[in-house]
Amino acid sequence: MQAIEKLQEIAIETIENQNYLSEPKSLYEPIGYAMSQGGKRIRPLLTLMAADLFSGDIEKAKPSAIAIEILHNFTLLHDDIMDKSPIRRGMPTVYKKYDENTAILSGDTMFAQAFLFLVKSDKNQIPALVQTLTKASIEVCEGQAYDMDFETRNDVKIEEYIKMITLKTGVLLASALKLGAITANASQKDIDYLYDFGINIGIAFQLQDDILDCWSNLEDFGKVTGTDIADNKKTFLYLKSLELANKEQKEVLLNYFCSTIFDKDGKEKAVKEIYEELNLKAIAKKLMEQYNDKAMDSLEKIGVDNLRKTNLINFANILMHRNK
Amino acid sequence: MQAIEKLQEIAIETIENQNYLSEPKSLYEPIGYAMSQGGKRIRPLLTLMAADLFSGDIEKAKPSAIAIEILHNFTLLHDDIMDKSPIRRGMPTVYKKYDENTAILSGDTMFAQAFLFLVKSDKNQIPALVQTLTKASIEVCEGQAYDMDFETRNDVKIEEYIKMITLKTGVLLASALKLGAITANASQKDIDYLYDFGINIGIAFQLQDDILDCWSNLEDFGKVTGTDIADNKKTFLYLKSLELANKEQKEVLLNYFCSTIFDKDGKEKAVKEIYEELNLKAIAKKLMEQYNDKAMDSLEKIGVDNLRKTNLINFANILMHRNK
Repeated sequence: MQAIEKLQEIAIETIENQNYLSEPKSLYEPIGYAMSQGGKRIRPLLTLMAADLFSGDIEKAKPSAIAIEILHNFTLLHDDIMDKSPIRRGMPTVYKKYDENTAILSGDTMFAQAFLFLVKSDKNQIPALVQTLTKASIEVCEGQAYDMDFETRNDVKIEEYIKMITLKTGVLLASALKLGAITANASQKDIDYLYDFGINIGIAFQLQDDILDCWSNLEDFGKVTGTDIADNKKTFLYLKSLELANKEQKEVLLNYFCSTIFDKDGKEKAVKEIYEELNLKAIAKKLMEQYNDKAMDSLEKIGVDNLRKTNLINFANILMHRNK
Repeated sequence: MQAIEKLQEIAIETIENQNYLSEPKSLYEPIGYAMSQGGKRIRPLLTLMAADLFSGDIEKAKPSAIAIEILHNFTLLHDDIMDKSPIRRGMPTVYKKYDENTAILSGDTMFAQAFLFLVKSDKNQIPALVQTLTKASIEVCEGQAYDMDFETRNDVKIEEYIKMITLKTGVLLASALKLGAITANASQKDIDYLYDFGINIGIAFQLQDDILDCWSNLEDFGKVTGTDIADNKKTFLYLKSLELANKEQKEVLLNYFCSTIFDKDGKEKAVKEIYEELNLKAIAKKLMEQYNDKAMDSLEKIGVDNLRKTNLINFANILMHRNK
């Protein structure tokens, strides 16, 4: 078993030492740009941690680690077009730096590249690996579609929101773990428990993101806060506040969330005030902890020595208590 | 061995009887729309013909046939955004009927669906099949990137054009054949010859397309003609005409091809006049025949009874002599 810091180092190195380039430059330069923008490399780290959990042979998991990170970055390229996001990790997004056509086509190429790396794995593991990555890709698209649908819907339920973030965030974290477990020849039962751990960690991760978007400060968070409120995102905070609000609060919320013409700061202040009156931060944190507990229950059931699970427990703790 | 008409019937049925739908509707309805727009189903037909050539077991090739047709349609969805094409097969393109975000995301989902069907193949064939489809996807993207690059370049060489159409058109036809051959457990040598056949047929197919775009009439061709000239596409016709033109003709061509402000009909008439003065139609047809001959040479070398090759020979003939 390796220290989590060591595994993260290997994950970063593995991603950053790859050659993503070829001809024509117009297609591959944006891919190199996207893949070199850093980020936490959480997904390849999860793949390596999963392999380390079962077999300790992280070498075999590297193609999967690269594949899942490319796939993740591909979804960002296309999401940024769809969401019209100009900035990511403090840099212009690909569609802003180049243009929309480039972001579409370079994104498509990355999607294929993910599979190109994946098929460098052990031959007998390729069917299960491809199946996993494919299913994950489809579900991430479904999550993004629900997210876009929710923008124009006014009857989104909390369980629908949870389903959406499960697909959009949970599935990729869970699949990152599953890929690693497959390369380590884990049993189907253990793979399923680990996948379940990943799903629940993913939901907790997204709830924490919603909280941070609302309450952290810009310097810590590293990106502009209050964007969910400004963009009328139907997050857990918003949906739960509607459920708990009195008539007056509800009117204010509905009024603010049916338009984007309001002054960003004034809107953010008014909505946050209601969130605070309703104690939403504590409620969201509690829900987050429930998902974390579920994750821990699944981890518990995996048939390896508990000591080997320390990395994943620590990882979940870091996610839960991060401020960015 | 089955009759080509029978195989085409099976190809169409196989594609059209699949269920491409799931939730959310906003994501899957456009996929159903794209997949039901008909088309010649050439690629799945090639997959079935390849399987039929070697083993006769076309059942095993069906997942590959579906996969290659979904992949092809995915590239159309994204190409239509990039090329701003409003109409395909007489119907509004997905990005026109829905919107750009939908075409991006439904396209991405189709890309993943292609692999989802592919992994329904025989387990021991999956690595080679995935490798083939992945490589094809990447090369098609490269072809599209070159095509877009050429729009703003004035120094495109004929061999660069051939490389571009090889990637953009040849590779997918060749890969359709290769997938079928893999499912039929053909030898590596035979697979390579068949792939080569597909590449050369693909180049001939695209040259024929260029000729038809210039010289067929609307009713036969089923789509607007003269678009290559209107869009300043650097086709073989244009590149070769520059090579053969006298000073005066060259000036006219360069003048017309550096702008889109000209009246479409006037421009088309003037450029076609030069093409005809230079005997371009016959020259392009001759080149097309050369690629067809190369294809036949490769087909010849495949180690199965010549009688079994009749379907592919007929298929190439149909492509060569089509008027739409």
